[in-house]
Amino acid sequence: MSLTLQTSVKPFKSLPLNRKNAHKLLSVRATTLQQPTTKTGSGSDQTSGQESRPTRVMVIGGDGYCGWATSLHLSNKNYEVAIVDNLVRRHFDHQLGLDSLTPISSIHDRIRRWRSLTEKDISLYIGDVCDFEFLSEAFTSFKPDAVVHFGEQRSAPYSMIDRSRAIYTQQNNVLGTLNVLFAIKEYSEDCHLVKLGTMGEYGTPNIDIEEGYITITHNGRTDTLPYPKQASSFYHLSKVHDSNNIAFTCKAWGIRATDLNQGVVYGVRTEETEMHEELYNRFDYDGVFGTALNRFCVQAAVGHPLTVYGKGGQTRGYLDIRDTVRCVELAIANPAKRGEFRVFNQFTEQFSVNQLASLVTKAGEKLGIDVQTISVPNPRVEAEEHYYNAKHTKLIELGLEPHLLSDSLLDSLLNFAVRFKDRVDTKQIMPSVSWRKIGVKPKTVSA
Amino acid sequence: MSLTLQTSVKPFKSLPLNRKNAHKLLSVRATTLQQPTTKTGSGSDQTSGQESRPTRVMVIGGDGYCGWATSLHLSNKNYEVAIVDNLVRRHFDHQLGLDSLTPISSIHDRIRRWRSLTEKDISLYIGDVCDFEFLSEAFTSFKPDAVVHFGEQRSAPYSMIDRSRAIYTQQNNVLGTLNVLFAIKEYSEDCHLVKLGTMGEYGTPNIDIEEGYITITHNGRTDTLPYPKQASSFYHLSKVHDSNNIAFTCKAWGIRATDLNQGVVYGVRTEETEMHEELYNRFDYDGVFGTALNRFCVQAAVGHPLTVYGKGGQTRGYLDIRDTVRCVELAIANPAKRGEFRVFNQFTEQFSVNQLASLVTKAGEKLGIDVQTISVPNPRVEAEEHYYNAKHTKLIELGLEPHLLSDSLLDSLLNFAVRFKDRVDTKQIMPSVSWRKIGVKPKTVSA
Repeated sequence: MSLTLQTSVKPFKSLPLNRKNAHKLLSVRATTLQQPTTKTGSGSDQTSGQESRPTRVMVIGGDGYCGWATSLHLSNKNYEVAIVDNLVRRHFDHQLGLDSLTPISSIHDRIRRWRSLTEKDISLYIGDVCDFEFLSEAFTSFKPDAVVHFGEQRSAPYSMIDRSRAIYTQQNNVLGTLNVLFAIKEYSEDCHLVKLGTMGEYGTPNIDIEEGYITITHNGRTDTLPYPKQASSFYHLSKVHDSNNIAFTCKAWGIRATDLNQGVVYGVRTEETEMHEELYNRFDYDGVFGTALNRFCVQAAVGHPLTVYGKGGQTRGYLDIRDTVRCVELAIANPAKRGEFRVFNQFTEQFSVNQLASLVTKAGEKLGIDVQTISVPNPRVEAEEHYYNAKHTKLIELGLEPHLLSDSLLDSLLNFAVRFKDRVDTKQIMPSVSWRKIGVKPKTVSA
Repeated sequence: MSLTLQTSVKPFKSLPLNRKNAHKLLSVRATTLQQPTTKTGSGSDQTSGQESRPTRVMVIGGDGYCGWATSLHLSNKNYEVAIVDNLVRRHFDHQLGLDSLTPISSIHDRIRRWRSLTEKDISLYIGDVCDFEFLSEAFTSFKPDAVVHFGEQRSAPYSMIDRSRAIYTQQNNVLGTLNVLFAIKEYSEDCHLVKLGTMGEYGTPNIDIEEGYITITHNGRTDTLPYPKQASSFYHLSKVHDSNNIAFTCKAWGIRATDLNQGVVYGVRTEETEMHEELYNRFDYDGVFGTALNRFCVQAAVGHPLTVYGKGGQTRGYLDIRDTVRCVELAIANPAKRGEFRVFNQFTEQFSVNQLASLVTKAGEKLGIDVQTISVPNPRVEAEEHYYNAKHTKLIELGLEPHLLSDSLLDSLLNFAVRFKDRVDTKQIMPSVSWRKIGVKPKTVSA
């Protein structure tokens, strides 16, 4: 076993909810010993003709839903992977009384199991990117060629629970990303930043959504400008802030960056996570972290009506988690140029919430499940009937072959939900966070 | 003397440069006793027909350059004014070894002098809006009808000194404004937020700049969307983040807000500040806080060549500080509607840097000063020759009668600079901060 755990710096101290102590959270550090970098494959360096060595990818937030699947996928493709994570996502579950539908192992067991199955090693740096001292150490030690940054508070409802969580979300996300940009500039200038944004940055304009930029002719003159953003939660706003900050550093410092404006991710299985139950990915179905389709499948499995918020005409882009990991791989293999701020819309299909409910209902029939749908008052502030047409061609041009929902629904979603339905906590299914009722008083969850 | 100083909460502790301690800075609190609110005048309530009482305006950052002039102007117009300020702007001067050209009195002396001259009282809350406990106390105690928010780190070069100052700027500005929004929602839902943005949020697009929004026809469909932003420093970016956050809260919570995208302010005299030397406003000419025109006038006065950055074709909007205070008054007297996010471009004339240099040279001739101009390497990353045409009609429509630079240059600027030229520290004139060379190591100033 090559894992050496260095307990150092500061012990766990307190809740991550106020600005004073948030960045000292969980700065225990664990690293695995480096493996000899002699492997080749799709992870080998594409740009240098001199010597073939694996591309070194730091995955910030590599213990989370998208991050874990991505870390394994890249490792499987012979990239040299380091996971940087403060494990705060697991802490949120503890604080809110939530749990993944699927039982998930500790990050240490996950990495050990991966190594025992594949002989591939993943380095581990446990700490907070808001702590620049920690981040510097991780950067100078691992020397990444690319950084995939999933390390943000990623739930819109979480950011709307109370003032503290709103502040925490913007502080953690915006300042953490600023630190990552400074680390790249200082230690690894040529490193490619692959940053997870969200399709939610665009909102629901009444015109077609382009990929990051739009060419506008106005009063007889023309320019190509950043696409106007209309985010609708403190979380989504934090991603808009990130995009603006990153665009500036590309221009001012020559940072190379790809902003992946990702749609709603569904599914739990990837080629790698299904190799062993200790590699299983998390599957969130609750009102705070559960994305729409995952939640609907769990509701169908336990006989709970599907909870459509309001009229259900809310249309968004969706993608299978197997496409998430492939998109990140494509972005890394085809890096942005120095100074380029490249934006990809990362989703494969558009659905309204009503269409999702209908698809889950039909899939349920095939399993002999009678699925009901109810409308619940919309806890969010959003248009419930609107135009939506978003471009998503750039990743297809790079070679993405989408998994379609119609093919995955039973296989990767409903069957999984049925298999683990005894673990469902039905108290967590209904929305508990209101966009309009958020207040300044800290909100806690009773037992 | 009605000023009662309550020293409470936490004493001054440390530098405001890291996220741990920044919000505890300077939370000594001073309040003046409230005066009977029987005055009437232009500050009296316009919207309620029931009882005439002065509109209560909280000026956050009321000890700063624009904030102090605005506080006095509003008080003079019979608004009931409270200044909220953590005095950190004075602290920056100490840390960086800078000083205002004009000698300025303490905030306590300023307010006492104002009262003795006019019998008008200004309440004072010394503390940090990033400290929500303090902000809550100020809100519930003063009960503002309008909040004018100048309380941000407002220098682009300051935000580009080093990583710590970049982080501080975005943390202080973005999270402070979030706190103000939460305070309005919680304590004073009908309160009108008048927020200082900057024309720099727009950057220099190759199309006309509109006031906050642009109507785009794209692929046969039309929508009016937020005008695309291209900010070019961590400071300017913080204002973009603010604008996006505020727009969301207008929509989600019904906040009423006016975003004043202000141009570069020049001049030091207003009707009120010239009433007594203890009321003098600050006048910054240094490379960090000095805006272009103020700096040029000081350079002319001391026989230093005007320092044009690069080619000097950088064109921006400018306004006299007497127009700043009037614009804020107009915004307050004509509040945004509930849920409205209103954007005004607050400037009166456009000039390139070369045009400013030429104007100062000609004005110098009239005073018998021989003014030279040199080009220095541009420390910023910005276009030095570009199209620039920004709309600014909304404040004119509300009644603004601009002071023009040609009329003010000698009077309010050059003569002032000549009068105080013995106080000029010529070491502070050259730019000391580079957009490209900013690093992670904390930068300090030697003696």
